[in-house]
Amino acid sequence: MLIAEPLQIAIDELSKLPSIGKKTAQRLALHLLKQNIEDVEILANSLLDLKTKLRFCKICFNISTDEVCDICSSTKRDRNTICVVEEASDIIAIEKTNEYNGLYHVLGGVLSPLSGQGVESLHIKELLERVNDEKPAEIILAVNPDTEGEATSLYLAKLLKQFNVKVTRIARGLPMGGDLEFADEATIGRAVLNRTGL
Amino acid sequence: MLIAEPLQIAIDELSKLPSIGKKTAQRLALHLLKQNIEDVEILANSLLDLKTKLRFCKICFNISTDEVCDICSSTKRDRNTICVVEEASDIIAIEKTNEYNGLYHVLGGVLSPLSGQGVESLHIKELLERVNDEKPAEIILAVNPDTEGEATSLYLAKLLKQFNVKVTRIARGLPMGGDLEFADEATIGRAVLNRTGL
Repeated sequence: MLIAEPLQIAIDELSKLPSIGKKTAQRLALHLLKQNIEDVEILANSLLDLKTKLRFCKICFNISTDEVCDICSSTKRDRNTICVVEEASDIIAIEKTNEYNGLYHVLGGVLSPLSGQGVESLHIKELLERVNDEKPAEIILAVNPDTEGEATSLYLAKLLKQFNVKVTRIARGLPMGGDLEFADEATIGRAVLNRTGL
Repeated sequence: MLIAEPLQIAIDELSKLPSIGKKTAQRLALHLLKQNIEDVEILANSLLDLKTKLRFCKICFNISTDEVCDICSSTKRDRNTICVVEEASDIIAIEKTNEYNGLYHVLGGVLSPLSGQGVESLHIKELLERVNDEKPAEIILAVNPDTEGEATSLYLAKLLKQFNVKVTRIARGLPMGGDLEFADEATIGRAVLNRTGL
């Protein structure tokens, strides 16, 4: 046997993780083998705690330690705006900007019939119920500006027409620090179309 | 709090691993959060097993489930040759070639005074004892062909002169499939110097 069995098992398990190939998995496993057992225990327990101590907020599906997440239960947030995102990680990204103080709603993906992601597998029904119950003034669609994200936005906008709510989409244009010369045509076209007054 | 505490802890622990940055750690933690608890348990246990089920062979310091590793205890290996490598992962790399059937000796690093890796922290004393006891015919120095590896090779070759043993170094030259045009001068120079008959 070339590689000791417990090492091979750890390599196989690590290489199931996204963006971790066989070689990286081997390097990680050999690195852990050299660490103190206490440090490996802390890592292993932190991974188990992800599943035992965390759950999804029953209102917005954000990651939370409680039944309702910090954002949904906060009294300091503007309850008139709901920002719709694909994943909970997008909430972290938007929160880091300090530009938004409303509520969120995590879809859990985008419509993608080819990869079997249909309307039922996303939290769309829950979003419509929230809009009906909470009556927010504005829904910001902040899904990624790729083909599937655009299709999902259009679909959601259509569904939301039945409510008395303003539906907006986060701006698409040149990224800050970007360069016209190196941007693709679709981005430049959108940036010209959506130009803003100074 | 922007990120729930158990998630932040898992991200911090994952980003302590080599080649895993904060962003990758966040992606991995969010990925695990979506998996079944059983799968996360299998991963966490496989990491713990690395420390509880594996140890280093008392003869060659290879990774092993027993006190003496499979290679050292095998009756099919040529006991006249010891191949000296930096890390146990190098044994895996050499074994995969099927070109070598001798024994190994893992140094546990190379001499690198700047990063505090001195003679005492490597398994050099144990190598000399093995050569003295086992009286092999040849020692192959297979440490990496970088500055520190070359220095370590020279140091080991000098120490091994006291024994009646042939000391060799793995060949340095152009990699298979390589291209003269794109190789560096040191490699081409070494390839010319170490040319072999056809």
